[in-house]
Amino acid sequence: MKPIAITTDFGLDDWFVGTMKGVIQKIAPNAPTVDITHAIKPGDIRAGAFALAAAYRFFPIGTVHLVVIDPGVGSERAGVVIETENYLFVGPDNGVFSFALRGERLRSIHRLENRKYQLTEVSRTFHGRDIFAPAAAHLSRGVPANQFGARQHELVPLEWPEPVITESGLRGEVVYIDHFGNCITNLPASRVLASGATRIKVGAKVIPIHDCYSAVKKGRPVAVIGSVGLLEIAINGGNAAKAMKLKIGSCILLGVYG
Amino acid sequence: MKPIAITTDFGLDDWFVGTMKGVIQKIAPNAPTVDITHAIKPGDIRAGAFALAAAYRFFPIGTVHLVVIDPGVGSERAGVVIETENYLFVGPDNGVFSFALRGERLRSIHRLENRKYQLTEVSRTFHGRDIFAPAAAHLSRGVPANQFGARQHELVPLEWPEPVITESGLRGEVVYIDHFGNCITNLPASRVLASGATRIKVGAKVIPIHDCYSAVKKGRPVAVIGSVGLLEIAINGGNAAKAMKLKIGSCILLGVYG
Amino acid sequence: MKPIAITTDFGLDDWFVGTMKGVIQKIAPNAPTVDITHAIKPGDIRAGAFALAAAYRFFPIGTVHLVVIDPGVGSERAGVVIETENYLFVGPDNGVFSFALRGERLRSIHRLENRKYQLTEVSRTFHGRDIFAPAAAHLSRGVPANQFGARQHELVPLEWPEPVITESGLRGEVVYIDHFGNCITNLPASRVLASGATRIKVGAKVIPIHDCYSAVKKGRPVAVIGSVGLLEIAINGGNAAKAMKLKIGSCILLGVYG
Repeated sequence: MKPIAITTDFGLDDWFVGTMKGVIQKIAPNAPTVDITHAIKPGDIRAGAFALAAAYRFFPIGTVHLVVIDPGVGSERAGVVIETENYLFVGPDNGVFSFALRGERLRSIHRLENRKYQLTEVSRTFHGRDIFAPAAAHLSRGVPANQFGARQHELVPLEWPEPVITESGLRGEVVYIDHFGNCITNLPASRVLASGATRIKVGAKVIPIHDCYSAVKKGRPVAVIGSVGLLEIAINGGNAAKAMKLKIGSCILLGVYG
Repeated sequence: MKPIAITTDFGLDDWFVGTMKGVIQKIAPNAPTVDITHAIKPGDIRAGAFALAAAYRFFPIGTVHLVVIDPGVGSERAGVVIETENYLFVGPDNGVFSFALRGERLRSIHRLENRKYQLTEVSRTFHGRDIFAPAAAHLSRGVPANQFGARQHELVPLEWPEPVITESGLRGEVVYIDHFGNCITNLPASRVLASGATRIKVGAKVIPIHDCYSAVKKGRPVAVIGSVGLLEIAINGGNAAKAMKLKIGSCILLGVYG
Repeated sequence: MKPIAITTDFGLDDWFVGTMKGVIQKIAPNAPTVDITHAIKPGDIRAGAFALAAAYRFFPIGTVHLVVIDPGVGSERAGVVIETENYLFVGPDNGVFSFALRGERLRSIHRLENRKYQLTEVSRTFHGRDIFAPAAAHLSRGVPANQFGARQHELVPLEWPEPVITESGLRGEVVYIDHFGNCITNLPASRVLASGATRIKVGAKVIPIHDCYSAVKKGRPVAVIGSVGLLEIAINGGNAAKAMKLKIGSCILLGVYG
């Protein structure tokens, strides 16, 4: 049985995630399941895509990535299984796989149409339970992707804010804020290193770039190349998002300052 | 080893759930465990009963449902194992199994009395760890229910608010509010369909009944038959409970409106 | 494969814990993993040490306890594997193991230095993924502790507030507040029993000591010997921390009152 890694916006307050795992166990009793996260903000496709891209490649080759951030559940949006050289991805075709797929060689995309691989009764509000979890479980058991439905050749795209070259330097923005209040930007390590910059500017503040959080004193801000290979803004022992009032979309300037 | 599905009000902030799983692993090392939810409001037996009823039948036949919403821990309330045609249920006899049992053919109820199937030291405040988790693990290993203690013939009942027929139509109420703010009512699909109603009334508001959330524009309210077979009130892309100030017990009228 | 029990301050909002489990699955595909908790307050080593001490001994002999509360990640603090008569512990050497180790017979401490047992790329901000999870997985597979690096003979200590004998009785303090608002003190059962006290004093309030929460009426305060063997202050059916405005460090007096 292939492992199944699950990412949703269902939260852990209700029975939704547990029910999906019950469905999986019924179909693929020995499939190991791992939660990536279920705390994506309801309907936030971009945050889900970001979390998946950050985590997926640390899983064993062959893992089925089951992703249900699905604000359009019950509408005409398609459900798909995507096969790449290394992984399988299952979920709604709404862009949520697009950041992860940048790092993968695509093999095929098939629609989830075959009723044989869905629950007998399919609701209009919980395809995670009725369509996506069964699909992941059957894939885990070894059912080939082409058994699920017709092939399709493109996926709904998702916009990613690229860094912009300006007169004052490279301008990036905050794209994800984590549990510790660390603010991850869209500035990749390669461009930070190429720039030769040793500081960044956030609003009026100039912040030094270092190797790790504890290179500055407790309570002081610092920019580091974080664990997903992007520049992030942190406070040693503190919460940068709160202290510096940073949000998704807040601007960062990478240049040579003072 | 039979799978064990766990529902509690312990939250995930402390070591409580993890410790129960450690206890299970010691007794039944290969028993697969699945969390239904641990976020039932402390001591809210009705919410626990609802979550269990919504989820339990999606698990493999033979699953042990371990449920610890136990405000009376350490008092005289009994611990029980309930056997039905399809499942085993373990936990306090306080009504928490009653909604799930409506869908099951009851076989037997036994008390958890046999000290052989409890931890050596039993605290007065954490029977989840000391009595219920060990019982679930021994059941998973195949110990028959009648080994745990004396048979009993009834369970503590739990009240369920039934819909009421009024002059203005069928009156239901909100019985559960989920993570998305969707408000699940006590109106079953069968009665909604039989009524021929296409709208419901919530306070002064008239809301259309549709097949899925996205049948209305973003931000608009809609009533749908949800994934547990009950009418629910939602806002497409929004949080109905917050926007419409709905609570557990808020009234809903199902009739034929303007 | 030895089971791996995981305790962190990573929360469940991001992909951190899921990624660690992906790394573990790659190295030790059949190692069972159990979460103790991931909700330790960011960087709160004492709370992490307390949760670990409360839970670790309920796990099967041989379990690898993977603990990542690591405010000094990327700095000079060492990573270690600790072997005791019954368990293995992996994480940063910052005191987080010290309460658990009081109950264990220490065998050895080795540093996590061998690059062979780390991910190929090691970040400066996420040793949970790059160093500690791989170490736990290799230990689960049976790699001996002495393969990880040089032996060391001491661990960074962690201060524990001991009860103090005063003229008015034994003075303790609140050391942990759980999900239910129960306030766990540093007063062990043995000293409570030896004192012969039947009441405690919290500020101006005198609270009776009983066997279980429900020995008092709903809404009334009660002190009980909790499930970790320490005196705790609770409200039957309520939240003691909120109602009585108790915090970590709040004083408790054990004497013979009124």
